[in-house]
Amino acid sequence: MAIKVHGSAFSTAAMRVFACLNEKGLEYEFVPVDMRAGEHKKEPFLSLNPFGQVPAFEDGDLKLFESRAVNQYIAHAYADKGNPLICQDPRKMAIVSLWMEVEAQKYDASAAKLTWELIIKPLLGMSTDDAIVEEQEVQLAKVLDVYEARLAQSKYLGGDNFSLADLHHLPTMNYLMGTRVKETFDARPHVSSWCADILARPAWQKVVAMKNNQ
Amino acid sequence: MAIKVHGSAFSTAAMRVFACLNEKGLEYEFVPVDMRAGEHKKEPFLSLNPFGQVPAFEDGDLKLFESRAVNQYIAHAYADKGNPLICQDPRKMAIVSLWMEVEAQKYDASAAKLTWELIIKPLLGMSTDDAIVEEQEVQLAKVLDVYEARLAQSKYLGGDNFSLADLHHLPTMNYLMGTRVKETFDARPHVSSWCADILARPAWQKVVAMKNNQ
Repeated sequence: MAIKVHGSAFSTAAMRVFACLNEKGLEYEFVPVDMRAGEHKKEPFLSLNPFGQVPAFEDGDLKLFESRAVNQYIAHAYADKGNPLICQDPRKMAIVSLWMEVEAQKYDASAAKLTWELIIKPLLGMSTDDAIVEEQEVQLAKVLDVYEARLAQSKYLGGDNFSLADLHHLPTMNYLMGTRVKETFDARPHVSSWCADILARPAWQKVVAMKNNQ
Repeated sequence: MAIKVHGSAFSTAAMRVFACLNEKGLEYEFVPVDMRAGEHKKEPFLSLNPFGQVPAFEDGDLKLFESRAVNQYIAHAYADKGNPLICQDPRKMAIVSLWMEVEAQKYDASAAKLTWELIIKPLLGMSTDDAIVEEQEVQLAKVLDVYEARLAQSKYLGGDNFSLADLHHLPTMNYLMGTRVKETFDARPHVSSWCADILARPAWQKVVAMKNNQ
């Protein structure tokens, strides 16, 4: 099979790539990396990603890492397959890029820390730091206030259609919906509808099923 | 004039956009934002960027923010002007995107904190936190080890040619070259040559001159 994703079904970054591949209806081979055994910090994995993080991605002889860059590649290289996730028009694409950057720079800064404290640390038998949770909930709320205003005017973050800008939120959003942070999303009606909409997408539900079957 | 950049000549994010516009040889109007007076946290600026951060960008009726998204728009929309900063081929572009993500997610995480502690805080009359500087120097060194290996095989991060993946490093790199962190760059020969090369570009030197004339 041409496309391989090396990673873990529990990794938010790997889930981001699986979601994109499912939206495009592409076949791929999932190569599990035993993160508890530290396989991602050793060769041969470091040859795929020198930062020692999952996922690593292969499409034939093209080797990539960084989930958001992988998804941009998939969306452009397979533009004619499955659901469109980007725009061809530079001005419309600029708006999608803008909200992709907001996810990466603003939303994820809080959402990733909250996911770590509330989901991953308990899974690893570590204690949640409540002070970090409280601080990051305040930060996330400020970001979601901006999203609420945006989503009052536009069905999706990048425009009228679902795009990578929405998709990139799914892994942390999904984890946080099982925590007290759900209230921070639910308190904003447009954000809450948007979450329900994008979490219900069949391509995402396949990622959830994959995680639950591990 | 069609293109306007609202910001400050001292802001790393605004400098990133000026560098890109200069590489493309585009004319633009610089609209200074008085950040000491908090203009970026009030209307009318918040209508341009709801996160209250510089720069905000206008190209006719297109309004954008997030410097890395702005630069992707400029590079794509003005692909036929000035120096090419992206690739049209999806597989080559994927490599450029990958290193753009590395800058945004790995390099900048340390470089922005070091710039804040060593340059911006002293400018504002605040004290540098040496513990943060030491911690972030260690993190930056790990990132630059990966860059050293990459730049031993490829003249620029994204491939044989200068691209947005290199350009996005310039503002923090330029500031840090005036601090003790210069040694962390200089200790790695390929990184050191790459820094000297990209810092010397005329488009970047214009940005430095603009800052020095403020």
